[in-house]
Amino acid sequence: MIVEIISVGTEILLGNIVNTNAAYLAEKCAGLGLSCYYQDVVGDNEERLTSVLNAALSRADILLLSGGLGPTQDDLTKETVAKVLHKNLYLHEPSKEAIAAFFQKRGIEITENNWKQAMVPEGCIVVDNPNGTAPGIIMEENGKRIVLMPGPPNEMIPMFENAIMPYLNALDPGIIYSQTVKICGVGESKVESMIEDLIDAQSNPTIATYAKTGEVHLRVTAKAEDDKEAKKLVKPVVKELKGRFGNHIYSTQEDVTLEKAVVDLLLANHLTVSTVESCTGGMLAARLINVPGVSDVFKMGYITYSNKAKRKLLGIKKSLLEKHGAVSPEIAKDMAKGGALFAKSDVAVGITGIAGPDGGSEEKPVGLVYIACSVCGRTSVNEYHFSGSRMKIRESSVSAALSMMRECILQYYSEVTFGGKKS
Amino acid sequence: MIVEIISVGTEILLGNIVNTNAAYLAEKCAGLGLSCYYQDVVGDNEERLTSVLNAALSRADILLLSGGLGPTQDDLTKETVAKVLHKNLYLHEPSKEAIAAFFQKRGIEITENNWKQAMVPEGCIVVDNPNGTAPGIIMEENGKRIVLMPGPPNEMIPMFENAIMPYLNALDPGIIYSQTVKICGVGESKVESMIEDLIDAQSNPTIATYAKTGEVHLRVTAKAEDDKEAKKLVKPVVKELKGRFGNHIYSTQEDVTLEKAVVDLLLANHLTVSTVESCTGGMLAARLINVPGVSDVFKMGYITYSNKAKRKLLGIKKSLLEKHGAVSPEIAKDMAKGGALFAKSDVAVGITGIAGPDGGSEEKPVGLVYIACSVCGRTSVNEYHFSGSRMKIRESSVSAALSMMRECILQYYSEVTFGGKKS
Repeated sequence: MIVEIISVGTEILLGNIVNTNAAYLAEKCAGLGLSCYYQDVVGDNEERLTSVLNAALSRADILLLSGGLGPTQDDLTKETVAKVLHKNLYLHEPSKEAIAAFFQKRGIEITENNWKQAMVPEGCIVVDNPNGTAPGIIMEENGKRIVLMPGPPNEMIPMFENAIMPYLNALDPGIIYSQTVKICGVGESKVESMIEDLIDAQSNPTIATYAKTGEVHLRVTAKAEDDKEAKKLVKPVVKELKGRFGNHIYSTQEDVTLEKAVVDLLLANHLTVSTVESCTGGMLAARLINVPGVSDVFKMGYITYSNKAKRKLLGIKKSLLEKHGAVSPEIAKDMAKGGALFAKSDVAVGITGIAGPDGGSEEKPVGLVYIACSVCGRTSVNEYHFSGSRMKIRESSVSAALSMMRECILQYYSEVTFGGKKS
Repeated sequence: MIVEIISVGTEILLGNIVNTNAAYLAEKCAGLGLSCYYQDVVGDNEERLTSVLNAALSRADILLLSGGLGPTQDDLTKETVAKVLHKNLYLHEPSKEAIAAFFQKRGIEITENNWKQAMVPEGCIVVDNPNGTAPGIIMEENGKRIVLMPGPPNEMIPMFENAIMPYLNALDPGIIYSQTVKICGVGESKVESMIEDLIDAQSNPTIATYAKTGEVHLRVTAKAEDDKEAKKLVKPVVKELKGRFGNHIYSTQEDVTLEKAVVDLLLANHLTVSTVESCTGGMLAARLINVPGVSDVFKMGYITYSNKAKRKLLGIKKSLLEKHGAVSPEIAKDMAKGGALFAKSDVAVGITGIAGPDGGSEEKPVGLVYIACSVCGRTSVNEYHFSGSRMKIRESSVSAALSMMRECILQYYSEVTFGGKKS
């Protein structure tokens, strides 16, 4: 089936906000096995929205709209869709009650125009919105499906996940099941070359590659008559990928980020961690601390951007800094060791590099980054060459550090367990 | 004039990447006084791209395309546009030379398919691409302008700024000039109510509001016959806004971010800074360190997520933590004071809060954040209530901290200078 994603909002046309809703819906639709050939953005304007709706109805089976369901006169997505499909609107009592309850809970007075949000087209399916006042709407007409969702991502995403996705999933007689294999520490082109034969041979399941900063995600998607059959198709492919990428796979679960995988690994091994950052200036700690529950493992973070801070907080000798320079494998190692020592943590990471745009030289160009990781007294250091803006180099450094932390911890345990080195 | 923004790329349709190009171009077009009524996304597919081109040609004066100019067979934007306009392609020698030089400089061998990028439609204007191998192309036909740009933002953005924007600007007999007034420390609705009369009365110049996390930008745009005239129209409006928002305006320059404004203020006053972060876990330091040249002011950053870290790194007493709780104005103050003391910095910021999703209570709900700022021994503390996801709460906290730093530094100097308190 063919889906078209329509984003309604003058704020997108003005470049006021980035259209992340479209990217989210597109990725989900791909995962559901729906083909998307067009995405459209149109303002809160009846004539132009009508023209987009007519074009989309002529070429797609499912229209996914977000935005324009607010309480003001400007918001006219629902009214325009109803007009195009020749439907009247009526007051939907349960939605009215939900809106009243929503306001009451927050102690805000309801204004008259809020009731506009409880008006829905005849014969539609009304979808609850626990995070806002605009209910979602599904209309079915002449074999076409039109889905209306609120624009704010914190309302749209839960509504899509809880109600719209199951609805779309049920449309196809078969079902779509997909699993994502998340890989770190291997570049995109290397990943692609390692699975070229699988990609060439694929039909069902299919494998799609998604490159992220410092990560590659492989989504394995199967179509089948039922869930069991689909999972049976996906399983051997995921197994094959596990065989090929081994420990570079940090998760096969949707909601596990790289930083969560690292925090989980620390928790599982009862390890504490500290961070010592120069060019990334706190970004590694910030990513780790984005994981709820990190307080059980995160001991301390040091931001030692200047040489003086490196000396004072970590006891790194002035002579060493002068001899090797702040961006060197030696100093990265001393940063990690110093972090472990002063924070009394089991794991410590040191990052030092040249993020640019200035400060590079022939010998040490912009993008040169050293990352050291210390696990229970054993310290390794890697050299990286990143490119892009100052921000991009720093983001790449953080992803590389997370990837290296995983690798060092796993290696430590494989050696102490299997190599008999455990003290 | 009416512009339509067309993004070409299957990776956008699959949700593999977020369409930031469209947002960038939309904002720039709004600044140029061009009206944008539609944005489209279409895959690398000749038939579908042709249909989008025809629709756009029927309703817009200028088509801005990005993507699909790569060297592979999949990339067919240029070929499709040429076909729609009945133009042949020819080998553009200067582009061929530029491509050869690009590869030679990087020591990469050229493959045969790279020469495809040097083919351009008859009669077009070829635009240099110093950051990649696909030149930009401008075609003029029957009063319509079609602009083709490469998809990668690091190629598209410089090309747009250096060549396309001046080209578009020159199309209109008049010129468009705009200046952005950047405000922090005042909420969006407050800002809007403070300029309601100006918005209602506006015609030329116009005022557009852009809400960012913790900031509001007001863009003042004038149309006039020449640059001088346009600036003359903008000037009194900017002056009026300066009168209304005073010190809450941190810059009127395009390239100055809030963190850069703070770093500049520190530099101008020869002040050093340190950060002490709990719930934001390094995000404030990371934003400050994104400013090149920050090394002259940034002394140290402490990430004290746990109580133990607060005690150990900053000497905060256990009894105080037990009495007030880690999320309290008292502890925020002690964090800032401790940072200033241990880092020997003139300015220090302490942030402590409940970022969620767990850890909230009736008394101290998720979103409660205390920020303290110490300037040369004087410490203030503010209480904030943010909403949204864990990440959103942390981002709001960082913006609030930057805003508060500015305010405290400015206040300190106004008092020591005018109040005769200077020591």
